[in-house]
This record gives sequence, C-alpha cells and structure tokens, in this order.
Amino acid sequence: MKRIIINTTDTLSAILVGARWEAVTKLLPGRNTVIITDSNIHKIYGSRFPEFPVIKVKPGEQSKQMIVAERIAGELLKKGIDRTGFILAIGGGVVCDLAGFVASIYLRGIRCGYISTSLLSQVDASTGGKTGVNLGQVKNVIGTFRQPEFVICDTTMLRTLSEVEYLSGMAELIKTGLIGDRSIIDILHKEFPSVIRRDRKLMTDLVFRAVKVKASVVAKDEKESGLRRILNFGHTFGHAFELSSNMRHGFAVAAGMELAAGYSNAAGILSAKDFQKVKDILELFKLRNRSFISVEETRKLLRYDKKKSGDKINFVLLKGIGKPVTEMVRIKAILDFYSEYIKNRQ
Amino acid sequence: MKRIIINTTDTLSAILVGARWEAVTKLLPGRNTVIITDSNIHKIYGSRFPEFPVIKVKPGEQSKQMIVAERIAGELLKKGIDRTGFILAIGGGVVCDLAGFVASIYLRGIRCGYISTSLLSQVDASTGGKTGVNLGQVKNVIGTFRQPEFVICDTTMLRTLSEVEYLSGMAELIKTGLIGDRSIIDILHKEFPSVIRRDRKLMTDLVFRAVKVKASVVAKDEKESGLRRILNFGHTFGHAFELSSNMRHGFAVAAGMELAAGYSNAAGILSAKDFQKVKDILELFKLRNRSFISVEETRKLLRYDKKKSGDKINFVLLKGIGKPVTEMVRIKAILDFYSEYIKNRQ
Repeated sequence: MKRIIINTTDTLSAILVGARWEAVTKLLPGRNTVIITDSNIHKIYGSRFPEFPVIKVKPGEQSKQMIVAERIAGELLKKGIDRTGFILAIGGGVVCDLAGFVASIYLRGIRCGYISTSLLSQVDASTGGKTGVNLGQVKNVIGTFRQPEFVICDTTMLRTLSEVEYLSGMAELIKTGLIGDRSIIDILHKEFPSVIRRDRKLMTDLVFRAVKVKASVVAKDEKESGLRRILNFGHTFGHAFELSSNMRHGFAVAAGMELAAGYSNAAGILSAKDFQKVKDILELFKLRNRSFISVEETRKLLRYDKKKSGDKINFVLLKGIGKPVTEMVRIKAILDFYSEYIKNRQ
Repeated sequence: MKRIIINTTDTLSAILVGARWEAVTKLLPGRNTVIITDSNIHKIYGSRFPEFPVIKVKPGEQSKQMIVAERIAGELLKKGIDRTGFILAIGGGVVCDLAGFVASIYLRGIRCGYISTSLLSQVDASTGGKTGVNLGQVKNVIGTFRQPEFVICDTTMLRTLSEVEYLSGMAELIKTGLIGDRSIIDILHKEFPSVIRRDRKLMTDLVFRAVKVKASVVAKDEKESGLRRILNFGHTFGHAFELSSNMRHGFAVAAGMELAAGYSNAAGILSAKDFQKVKDILELFKLRNRSFISVEETRKLLRYDKKKSGDKINFVLLKGIGKPVTEMVRIKAILDFYSEYIKNRQ
C-alpha cells in the first residue's frame, strides 16, 4: 500500500493506493458514521460494509442533484447525526462528488472519507477535493472545494467494473500521463495485456503515478486559480460532448483530448509526432470518437463552461507529451478549428 | 464611517459601519455583478440600486431553502455569470444567509458582499461568515462558513424597519452586550429615547461595538470549534422556540437568554443581581416572553440543535454581565430547569 498526502491550507488528505478497502474501519470514528453509496455498489459489496447505517442513491449522474443532496441531509438529521458525524462514501465519482458535497454543507461541514470504486474516480474524481452536483444537464455548477480525510483506492475493486466503465477511467489515466507523467503512457503501451487484464499490482502502480501527479498540482493550487487548470485538459470539448450526447465522461474527455492536442498542433506548439502519439494511445484503448456534434451545438454548450471568461476560455494545450500549457483562447478560434477538424479527420 | 476587518485563514472581510449604502458601487467590479434581494427591500430601495441585474426572492424564512438556492444558481447560469462574477446581497439575515450560501457553492464559489438592511443582520447575521438554508422547519441545517468581502451596515436603513423587526434586532444587540461588552447594556439604558428614535449616530456607535465583539470572536475561531460558541448565548432555547411557534428570531433568542441566565443563576454561577439586570434590559425593550411551549415539545426540538453531542449540549452560561462561559450540559438538566422555571416565573 502506498500513501500520498495532499496538504492544503485547511486539511491533510491521505490517498491510500493499493490498500484493502475492508481496512477502512481503522480510519472511522466508532460511532456517528453514515455510509453513502449507490445501489449497484451496495449489491456487490454491501454485505461486507462496516456496520453503520447506509443511505443509498440511484447509480449514475441522475443522483448528482441538489434535491438528492437535500434528501440525504434530511436523512442524516433524522438519524441524529451531529457535528461529530462522519460520512463514508463508497462508490465512483458520482457518489463521492455527491457525498463530499453533502459533507461540506451539512451543519456547515462534517468529516468525510471515500472508498473509491471506479478507475475514473481513483485516478481523478475522488482526489483533489472537488465536490459537486449538476444543475439540469450542466455539470458541477454547484459544489465546493473540500478535501476528504482519506481516499482508499483499492485496485481489486476495478475487477467488478464493466468494460466501458473501465475504459472511461482509462481516459483520465491517459490524461494524467499526457499532462504530467509520460511514463504512464509508456507503461500503458508496454504492459497493455496486463492493463486489460486489470492486473492488481500494475494498476496499483499506475493509479499511484496518476494520484501523485494530481496531488502535486492540487497542493500548489487547491482552488484552481492557475496551475490546477491543466487538469482540465480535454475537458473543454469533453464537457460539451458529455452534455449533448450522454457520452460517458471518460469517452467525452478522450474526444476532447484529441481535439485539444489537434488544436495545439495546428497552433504550431505540438509536433506532428507527439500529436500522433496522443491519437495512438487513444486508439489503443478504443477511445477515439466516431461521431461529433455540430459546431452550432458546441458553441451553445461552451457557454456553460466554468473556465469561460467573457468571449475567451481557459484552454489547456500540449507542447509535448507530459507538457501542458494553459492559455486564454477566443472561443471563436476553438470553434473554427473544431469545424475544420471534424471535416478532415481520419 | 468605521471599518472593522475580520481576518480569517482564507480572506479579509471588511465590515463598514455607518457607511452610506449608495457608496457600494466603489466596491464592486464593473461587470458580472448580480444583486440578490427580497421584494420588500426592492420596493423601498430598488430605484436607487446600482445598475446590475436583480434576482428577487420572497421576504422571510420561506426563502431560506435549497430549492431557492438552486433556482438562483440557475438564473446566474442563464445570465452567463462565470467565476469572475460577484453577488451583492441587499437585505436582512435571510437574504444575506441565502445569497452568501449561493456565492459559496455556485461554480464552487464566487465573490460576494452584503448591504445589511436590518438591525438583526447588522449586529449579527451578516458578520461572521455563516451562511445557510433551512431543512423543512429546522434552521440552518445546510450551509457553509464563508466571509463576504464586505458588509455595509448603514444605520439610516434601520428607519424603514417595522417596530417588531427593530426590537427583534435589539435582542441580538443585547446578546452581544451580555457576552462581550457591558457598555452596550449601559448605553441602551442611558440613551433609551435615542435608541427608540433610531438615532443614526448612536446606532452607528452601538452597531460598531457589537460588530467589534463579534469580529474578535470570529477571528479567533471562525469555524466554531470553541470560543465562537459563546455567540450562541440564548440560542439553544431560542431555536426551539423559533421552530415551534414562528416566533421572530430576536424574540426567541431573548426568551432563550432569560432562560440561560436563569439556569446560570440556578447553577450558582450568576448572581441574583446580574440575573435581574438581564431581565431588566429585556423588559425595557418588551422582549420578555409571555408564553412558553411545553417541556415535551422543547425536548423534541432540542434534538435538532447543531451544538448537540449525544445526550449533552454545548450550552452558554453567564457568570456576569459580559462574561459568558460554555459548558457541556446534560439536555435533561436543562429541561428539568425549564420545567421548574416556567412554573414559577414572574
């Protein structure tokens, strides 16, 4: 088991990669704990949960809503959870985002920790302390910055993921490689069969590398005033695709990464060779998008991007594998590129 | 105009007492500002608001709800407010609590400032950075700690308050005197006619004294892990009364202060003379409660107190005027006292 500490102004958050999730009991207060999970996770692991009351939500984005957060707060109140209470989230990104949000606003904030069950949340969503719910279709409009006390990333749990869930998580792992640690990309190529087999040891190593990148970024810029923006690589187009077509997060981000790398290449800062490498690694994991939405729809959806400021947007480009750079780019320039790219793409 | 700076980990918050509210424009960014207010305040002052879009809510506690916070977030999104946005709350405690909550969760937090229009919010609610909404009837179950960039307390605005609103605010002013500055109590006695006349200069002086007490407490303990609890003097019973009978906040707190002082006297730490002083100042402002709820109902309602931990509660006692002390007290002991007190009270 490897431990990474995220040290921000307010808190210490420990990411435990490769730990067994059943060991969580050692990290919990003896009483006043409530587990928040979804019904899928509960079906698979529920019988082995520590003995605390459980609040279940429906699986999927539909649960990332204010009204669900409010319902959970009501149940906590009914169960008599006071300020000494503790929320343990067991699930993927949706459960952790939602439970973390509730923990940050219930009685103006109580303690929480996560057991992160999906690859997506292990390498990205659960570390870094962003919590949130959606507003209608628009993602994470409402939320907080709030570090959980711990995140357990047990890679044996990855075995129960469906293939699309696993590949969706792979996209965020690739993203982390592209912006912060090219060895991740090299290992994914070299050890491809073991990656597909979800080999515990190898995946623990990869998740550890990804979390290390993320932790070092978050420690320097918890609230995304600068550096942290690089974590949004691929997310500008990605969020728009996700909004419009119910594409899974990872697949949408993968399509967004290809476009951001393409834009970087067109802008003359990323070599053709490195751009090809980006496409190759996405191809290897069946993460290249086959159908794009219209320019007009994309324009409409970019309007909701949190990184927007006036008619410009904070856009993450690549100047090499592992070398991101953030620029304020005119939304029009991005859309012009998009229009050309989807016409000519092979 | 007097300025008090609240300096907490994250932010500097400036409380401007005696400033003219119209001067707020100097503190706002030129663009991307939205005003949140209620329809009463808008009727009186709306024509003189700075020229920014306005979101109106209904007056009163009914607006302190998650669903209203969500509606406001939706309107901000529709107006294209991004992370550079600014929320200006103009109103009393309800508006500031609600708008501050939205500002702390919209896009994971945008800037905000308050113009505090009621005596209650000037001396208490708007300073200190507690934001929140209610859950059903239970007050402030959901919220955050978040300092606004500024709070303008213009005491000329107090003239438009109804008498009950003014007296309700008076209760929190008295509370601040009782826990932190006995000169407030002395001035209220000595200058009673001017207080009732809502004399601008005198009220500016009193609000300033109250904010000074609060700021020094909050700076030492923003998130209420210890010292800050003294601000809850009178609020244990107060919140229960408010819950059960729709009593105005200040009147409920006044009844709670009489009981907390009575309990302190019965416990042998507050002299009979000082207890009498507490009753006298409440009497002077018609703040002594004439009807109490049953012991059984009180028991039920104390269950929801945020300061509860197991079968004890963090209770604020007085050992003299201006001298609070916090103790973990058995809820049963408090209820036994309550039962006796309401039987024998004159």
